[in-house]
Amino acid sequence: MTIADRWLLPDGMDEVLPPQASRMEELRRTLLDLYHGWGYDQVMPPPVEFLDSLLTGTGTDLDLQTFKLTDQLTGRMMGASADVTPQVARMDAHSLKRQGPVRLCYCTNVLRAKADQHQGGRSPVQVGVELFGHAGLDADKEIIHLALSSLQAAGAQEVHLALGHIGIYRSLVEAAELNAEQEAQLFDALALKSPGLLAENVSASVTDPALAEMLLALGELHGDADILLQARERLAGAPASVVAALDQLDALYQGVLAQFDVSLYFDLAELRGYQYHTGMMFAAYVPGYGHALAKGGRYDDTGRAFGRARPATGFSMDLKQLASLDVASPAQGAIWAPAEQAASLDAAIAVLREQGERVIQALPGQRTGPAEHGCDRRLEFIDGRWQPTTLTQETSA
Amino acid sequence: MTIADRWLLPDGMDEVLPPQASRMEELRRTLLDLYHGWGYDQVMPPPVEFLDSLLTGTGTDLDLQTFKLTDQLTGRMMGASADVTPQVARMDAHSLKRQGPVRLCYCTNVLRAKADQHQGGRSPVQVGVELFGHAGLDADKEIIHLALSSLQAAGAQEVHLALGHIGIYRSLVEAAELNAEQEAQLFDALALKSPGLLAENVSASVTDPALAEMLLALGELHGDADILLQARERLAGAPASVVAALDQLDALYQGVLAQFDVSLYFDLAELRGYQYHTGMMFAAYVPGYGHALAKGGRYDDTGRAFGRARPATGFSMDLKQLASLDVASPAQGAIWAPAEQAASLDAAIAVLREQGERVIQALPGQRTGPAEHGCDRRLEFIDGRWQPTTLTQETSA
Repeated sequence: MTIADRWLLPDGMDEVLPPQASRMEELRRTLLDLYHGWGYDQVMPPPVEFLDSLLTGTGTDLDLQTFKLTDQLTGRMMGASADVTPQVARMDAHSLKRQGPVRLCYCTNVLRAKADQHQGGRSPVQVGVELFGHAGLDADKEIIHLALSSLQAAGAQEVHLALGHIGIYRSLVEAAELNAEQEAQLFDALALKSPGLLAENVSASVTDPALAEMLLALGELHGDADILLQARERLAGAPASVVAALDQLDALYQGVLAQFDVSLYFDLAELRGYQYHTGMMFAAYVPGYGHALAKGGRYDDTGRAFGRARPATGFSMDLKQLASLDVASPAQGAIWAPAEQAASLDAAIAVLREQGERVIQALPGQRTGPAEHGCDRRLEFIDGRWQPTTLTQETSA
Repeated sequence: MTIADRWLLPDGMDEVLPPQASRMEELRRTLLDLYHGWGYDQVMPPPVEFLDSLLTGTGTDLDLQTFKLTDQLTGRMMGASADVTPQVARMDAHSLKRQGPVRLCYCTNVLRAKADQHQGGRSPVQVGVELFGHAGLDADKEIIHLALSSLQAAGAQEVHLALGHIGIYRSLVEAAELNAEQEAQLFDALALKSPGLLAENVSASVTDPALAEMLLALGELHGDADILLQARERLAGAPASVVAALDQLDALYQGVLAQFDVSLYFDLAELRGYQYHTGMMFAAYVPGYGHALAKGGRYDDTGRAFGRARPATGFSMDLKQLASLDVASPAQGAIWAPAEQAASLDAAIAVLREQGERVIQALPGQRTGPAEHGCDRRLEFIDGRWQPTTLTQETSA
């Protein structure tokens, strides 16, 4: 292997250099402080779990994205966490076992075996919140509010929010009494947004003409707020749960409109990447990014596999992507201290650092100077004490 | 699989619940701010790299601790990072390519295939600093200073600092002209601290009686500061590099003594877990913890494999362990807000949150009350405006 080869990193496994890493750290703190202010308690899920626990009730998407590892201690298969949300649901259901609503937040590395075109790299830093124990719309509103506040905090401009509700599709499919294979094919046709494929699948598997009409309509029901009105017409004969879902979307729409200046978009056939969702789902986009910056929704069933089904709603983002939105360098000065060994100098440096200043002390024989290390001041011994003086062209040379 | 089984986590792969996760977050910030104040720039190494890059020049210990993964994109073997230090050395040598001293810090999850008895669990959060580009003792002093300051910040009491220097062992072994196998056996004998095994190996492989005497002495040279004086006697005829190493330890000893109230301990045959080190090494302990809380040292050769050998010194810790030192619950009040929908209430809550208050809003129908959610105040509408009032036994019931 040549030296050049040793520098290559696997695709999507990125390193983060200065100053981008500091920017991420700053945004991490802003977001976790935001969630703390709303009553969300931080948790850290394990980075690796036994595969059975990790993938319980989460669907095949997550299985394909999960790196598999053999546990040398037990010989059992383990998986590296590719999505924190089901882990946090387990923590709520089993580890915390609290009564009433539980609000949890996290910010942690996850690994993905494949780069998902909708997710970015294979080593995202997943940050998000989950609200357990409340089935009402107020919980969903709080979650959407926090998602949009998070994007705002990250400096996102011109946010587009796509809203959907998996309950509409689920109710129609249930009413159509499809078998598993038919359902999977219909799902794929809708997910691919292919009208031809959809028509083919519907005519082959859906016998009730009204339901067939509604499933075909689903593929066309995406667009601005007008879609909700259209949906009420075209899905008029649908099960009551479909009407309830449309009512929920309407209420969320009004709630978001009242508080945020975002473009709203509805897609009643949005199904991708949401295998564990059960209710409203949303994704937030900004121009110039092909994939969603924040994704979330309601997933009431995940805790069941761990013995305690709890209502749940939440969202997550990739901190790496999010931190790349605002590339303004943080204003940051530093003070250059000479390499001298003197107790008075050590004391002066310690005081400045305690005051929150960044002080970089030269090392003996060092050839690079204060300017090369981002310093705008220099510590000098003047009038019997160490004082920071502004660096001029002259002194920094 | 039963539900109970799904709750089991692999040994050493821990979840962190509230309030411990907040405690870790707080300590993370304190430490990264400390390092920032000293001029250390944060970096985030990739969590997974190609195995060849990851293990270049790092020795077999790290190989055994590294989880192996197949890259589905290239079919090549990858490894999950088990130690951030060599990765940061690569970032300095290749990605940054800066002139002069470079100071870097990090705080990130790592994974270990085996639980190391000296490291704790298999999913530590490694936090530390590395200083590249300066071979002098001032760099080592800065590193030890930061390690001890970090422990202080974490609330560590009665710190014991063990100091060693791998150069002493290396110089003696080189002078004895051992072959690789003899060297490995001698290494094991010293690492196991077995006098019998050491004597056996020395008599079998070291022909020069003076060198044999010195290698045997090495096994006994551990204890308080007096050891340095003993070493100067017992290693009197050793190569000049051994004397230089003892001089360095002397200077570090004086430097640490002057600034920190710690117990110092010397171990000139301390070799475990330090396969890439080249100079002084240290480990910090506190009573009640069987393993070191901070470990570090000089490792000047790691960058060579990446085409740019640079002097390097640094240390790292496990944030999980460190945060468990100080289990005092952070004082933290919160304000309970009613579930009402009112613009005036929303506005009042927003203002309080902006002021840094934690405000938890009840959800409609919620049965748990303010006390169960850690609230010490309640937002009430009094005299025409929303005001936080202190919770009494009565109101919280």
